[in-house]
Amino acid sequence: MAHDDVVYCDTPPGARLFDEATVKGHFWTICRYFISEKFLTYCGIAASVTVLNSLAIDSPEEPQIYPYKMFTQDNIFTDAVLHHRRPLEVEKGGNTLEQLAAVLDALRVGVETYFGSELDVDRTRRTLVDALSAEDKRVIVDFDRKTLHQKGSGHFSPLAAYHKGEDRFLLMDVARYKSPPCWVKAAVLHEALVGIDTTSGKSRGFLVVTRPDPTADGVAA
Amino acid sequence: MAHDDVVYCDTPPGARLFDEATVKGHFWTICRYFISEKFLTYCGIAASVTVLNSLAIDSPEEPQIYPYKMFTQDNIFTDAVLHHRRPLEVEKGGNTLEQLAAVLDALRVGVETYFGSELDVDRTRRTLVDALSAEDKRVIVDFDRKTLHQKGSGHFSPLAAYHKGEDRFLLMDVARYKSPPCWVKAAVLHEALVGIDTTSGKSRGFLVVTRPDPTADGVAA
Repeated sequence: MAHDDVVYCDTPPGARLFDEATVKGHFWTICRYFISEKFLTYCGIAASVTVLNSLAIDSPEEPQIYPYKMFTQDNIFTDAVLHHRRPLEVEKGGNTLEQLAAVLDALRVGVETYFGSELDVDRTRRTLVDALSAEDKRVIVDFDRKTLHQKGSGHFSPLAAYHKGEDRFLLMDVARYKSPPCWVKAAVLHEALVGIDTTSGKSRGFLVVTRPDPTADGVAA
Repeated sequence: MAHDDVVYCDTPPGARLFDEATVKGHFWTICRYFISEKFLTYCGIAASVTVLNSLAIDSPEEPQIYPYKMFTQDNIFTDAVLHHRRPLEVEKGGNTLEQLAAVLDALRVGVETYFGSELDVDRTRRTLVDALSAEDKRVIVDFDRKTLHQKGSGHFSPLAAYHKGEDRFLLMDVARYKSPPCWVKAAVLHEALVGIDTTSGKSRGFLVVTRPDPTADGVAA
């Protein structure tokens, strides 16, 4: 295909884009906790686990690595999460944008939900770059793979960086057995966020996840 | 601690070292497949899974992600591997350098075993940089954490890059819940490879893993 909408990181041009990029404060912590979805439908769960660990959110116990711990694609289903979504439901049908927001909300992190259809390219870019520039925020996008010339349809993954000169975002694809991390043109990413998710009947979009301020009222430690 | 033996990647100096480094051809494929050890003793297994996937070695079936597949910390124990090492043995006591080499050899990839005590710093550096510069090779080091001013003792992890100006290697620590990726001075890394593993009575060291040439005689496809 003769397009440069998407540049993969395992190619010399993709690697060079990372070296040049200036908005990449999230990258090393996302890299540290980057995982593969355990089922084809677990993209939202895998993206959330990566982001929660990278924000150093206190996780449930994990006996296999005691006394250490971290979020996994199993222990993320806490009592509070199970009230909204169960593993078998996700395994069967994945999550919509709002269902994933409910999972994260149940874990008491801040979640802002943005529907792609409600923002133009400029506001999408600005909102994403602002979040990628904040130490206490992370971004998960819900995009249509077809717009990125990839097989499949709806898919969740974290963003980790922005390249201003090329106006591209670094997408850390959690279906790692299918796709390496890649740089997506902002206009192409926006287009991939505006399509309708047939399960919800609403557009795709993105979530901005924020670490709770431990000094704020009403937030559990 | 007032030393700069180890610089972590989630700090601005660590991130800058990556941008400046020139020997980093392995990085993006290691990043793509980087995982956390599932038990505290599974470092060699987690490092091997990362490296095997990054070399695109044909893996066993993985029903949860069918029709895709990849190596995991479970399916790496093929019949041929089980002949040498079993999960319960590794869970209980980890692997020595030679035990991990036997696991990889059973998977029919090329494995060269280097004992730290048999190489000086210069030869260690040259051998590691040569391997990190080869598209078909990957490196797993067996080092003593104490030399890196970290808690613990023997530990396996892949290397992913080399910074010539600072003479440092990028270590992708698979105990990700403990340590971010970090840049280790070559002399410090060498020192961490020469200590004795009390289980084997031999020194630690490193493995160079090579993707088999599919056109060579006697190598299974």
